[in-house]
Amino acid sequence: MSWLSVSPTSHFSLANIPFGVVSTAADTSPRPAIAIGDYALDLRVFAAGGGFAGSADIKKHVAVFSAPTLNEFAALGRSFHRAVRGYLRAVLAADTKHPELLRDNEQLRKAALVPRAEVQNHLPMAVGDYTDFYAGKNHAYNVGVLFRGRDNALQPNYLHLPVAYHGRASSVVVSGTPIRRPWGQILKDAKAEPKVPVLATAEKLDLELEMGMFICRENKMGSPVPVDEADDYVFGYVLLNDWSARDLQLWETVPLGPFTAKNLGTSISAWVVLADALKDAKGPGIPNDTPLLPYLQEKSKDNVVGIELEVDLITANGDKTTISKTNSKHLLWSWPQMIAHHSISGCNLRPGDLFGSGTISGEDSTSRGCILEQTQGGKIALKLQGGEERTFLQDGDTVVIRGWAGKEGALVGFGEVEGTIQPALPLF
Amino acid sequence: MSWLSVSPTSHFSLANIPFGVVSTAADTSPRPAIAIGDYALDLRVFAAGGGFAGSADIKKHVAVFSAPTLNEFAALGRSFHRAVRGYLRAVLAADTKHPELLRDNEQLRKAALVPRAEVQNHLPMAVGDYTDFYAGKNHAYNVGVLFRGRDNALQPNYLHLPVAYHGRASSVVVSGTPIRRPWGQILKDAKAEPKVPVLATAEKLDLELEMGMFICRENKMGSPVPVDEADDYVFGYVLLNDWSARDLQLWETVPLGPFTAKNLGTSISAWVVLADALKDAKGPGIPNDTPLLPYLQEKSKDNVVGIELEVDLITANGDKTTISKTNSKHLLWSWPQMIAHHSISGCNLRPGDLFGSGTISGEDSTSRGCILEQTQGGKIALKLQGGEERTFLQDGDTVVIRGWAGKEGALVGFGEVEGTIQPALPLF
Repeated sequence: MSWLSVSPTSHFSLANIPFGVVSTAADTSPRPAIAIGDYALDLRVFAAGGGFAGSADIKKHVAVFSAPTLNEFAALGRSFHRAVRGYLRAVLAADTKHPELLRDNEQLRKAALVPRAEVQNHLPMAVGDYTDFYAGKNHAYNVGVLFRGRDNALQPNYLHLPVAYHGRASSVVVSGTPIRRPWGQILKDAKAEPKVPVLATAEKLDLELEMGMFICRENKMGSPVPVDEADDYVFGYVLLNDWSARDLQLWETVPLGPFTAKNLGTSISAWVVLADALKDAKGPGIPNDTPLLPYLQEKSKDNVVGIELEVDLITANGDKTTISKTNSKHLLWSWPQMIAHHSISGCNLRPGDLFGSGTISGEDSTSRGCILEQTQGGKIALKLQGGEERTFLQDGDTVVIRGWAGKEGALVGFGEVEGTIQPALPLF
Repeated sequence: MSWLSVSPTSHFSLANIPFGVVSTAADTSPRPAIAIGDYALDLRVFAAGGGFAGSADIKKHVAVFSAPTLNEFAALGRSFHRAVRGYLRAVLAADTKHPELLRDNEQLRKAALVPRAEVQNHLPMAVGDYTDFYAGKNHAYNVGVLFRGRDNALQPNYLHLPVAYHGRASSVVVSGTPIRRPWGQILKDAKAEPKVPVLATAEKLDLELEMGMFICRENKMGSPVPVDEADDYVFGYVLLNDWSARDLQLWETVPLGPFTAKNLGTSISAWVVLADALKDAKGPGIPNDTPLLPYLQEKSKDNVVGIELEVDLITANGDKTTISKTNSKHLLWSWPQMIAHHSISGCNLRPGDLFGSGTISGEDSTSRGCILEQTQGGKIALKLQGGEERTFLQDGDTVVIRGWAGKEGALVGFGEVEGTIQPALPLF
């Protein structure tokens, strides 16, 4: 328990202490903060006010709390994150041994603890490379059935390696950023010959429910990361929505994969939940009977982080429908396995690199992670509260993804990642 | 002509003035420089010594010449690059009107003009996103024939849009960086069922001869760049070798494209040749009879930059064979068309983004841009000087790509991009 009043349903309990980057009307420069209950604790102000006086080790590095992103903090490594999180939990605890640092320091409390409703969140990390995996086996299977039928739904490599591709880093945006309906090349009639595309606005705009993970440690180019050391490279996690224009994707995707269909924007939640905060949420993922090559064999079989996930679709007139409920345990590969595979050919990772899990779907129709799956390619409309229907996203639709682990009173949550579809602009 | 002695065969004539980032034994901090003949002109020293005294406009921005990359310089835009290049040409010209700035200023000349043999080159730009196109139609066709036969060599979208995928930015390295033979998953017998890969070192390591282009201007997310304005986003060009492990690539590439097979390293030449320096090298690319959608229609049909290109393979014992001669006019799409397509769905570009052209092959067997094509998938060995043969690259092999435009005495060249294959390390 904290001496601050924290609602038992808050995602940002004392068990969490997620990190983000904020600014305020009074000071518009982005700087690191943590979320606690309904507050953000401004770490730049906290550090300047002597908040870290109780730890010589942390004090040495307080410059990282004046940076405009979390990259420098992340690069200091897992043991440093652990020390800072532990320190801040101790300062905020009801039985804190250092009440003079914040609880009883009215001046610093008023300056550093800002209601979250009054802060603006920024992208927490400067994203180096963004890699999107495809580890949601149920999603991969469902989409495979749609495009290739049941017998060839999964490609031959799928159970042997964590399939992935490079995404676009520049268009990763923080929750709340509007998403513009894109223009692009679309093949309206897939059966006509010759195949001639048109230039049009996407009609099949979709969400993708994913988890994101930020890297905090560098490996040397040419040096793969052993899978059982890979957890040391995990800074923390976010919710991720990889917006996808299915009609653009279908036409452009051969032979090198998706490109303009995904470049339009990728949204992440504002607060990075540290790896340590989710240690208790680990368990088995989707079983895989395929014998794995040694570099993917983990000592622990309980290495997949399980987050409860929900997706709301809110129409322009405010009607809200929860269109999916699932859990991130529905992944075939753990984050350490993804890191091991990413680096097996020598690729160097850097603090700030973002991994996406791939779309996460459960086993039944209420737990699908994208509309393409839910509507079986647009064939069966989703029925929404208020009577509207959807086969894909319409202008003005807002998608909200929530995620959390743990129990009331000690929730370790992400808050949400939210984005609203804006109508396409006229072209030139 | 310059008052400096510049060999008529130098790639770095007064007509060029390419920009790079260098350090020296005496000062190991990376800083911007230009190449002129056998010298690098250290722009940080030049600026500090009053070298830009002749231009108030440039003097305002000299801080960019103390940065460790060219990104800040690039972000100042085409007209600023033009002003700086023009100014430096005037200062270096035999008939310079300001001999006191450098020619007759012995102290500054000795401090700022460093023999290139004594400088270390660094990556010229901090690479934001790296996008690799596939605009070498002859290459795409030849590879398509190998894998799908003549009738389906090019995919239906190929003539309608510049096919591209996202590459890995972190493993882009400057010329001279060794490349480690990678480990990865390989399907040794493609016909056996079930398909079971092994973990092994790549046996089919290849080069890819490409041009690279750096972006200097940002567009807002959601706002496509009109094709006839896109040249304003081009900072300059480099030679690029997109090292590729074909055996890793074949197994992993469905359905999302190449990943570990390309992550092992991408080499670029050290000096960025500015867009203005290659204006006269533009001409028609590969003809395309396909009616293009409006956003890809350029006013000028002579918009493809033509660079003479040569590839040398040097064995460990020093035998050198020129294995390919071609020209970058063998591209189906111009750089402005690639920019227009990249941004059509709203993707934001940023200064420092790197585009690769895709592998460039001419029309005959002496002009192929990768070994996969030259050996028809490893079937016909390349015969090298000294009697050795190659179906793919061996440990100790060095690949050197050279490129230039213009005539002796006024060459606009890139120097070279070079890399040597190091043997694989034991795994863990």
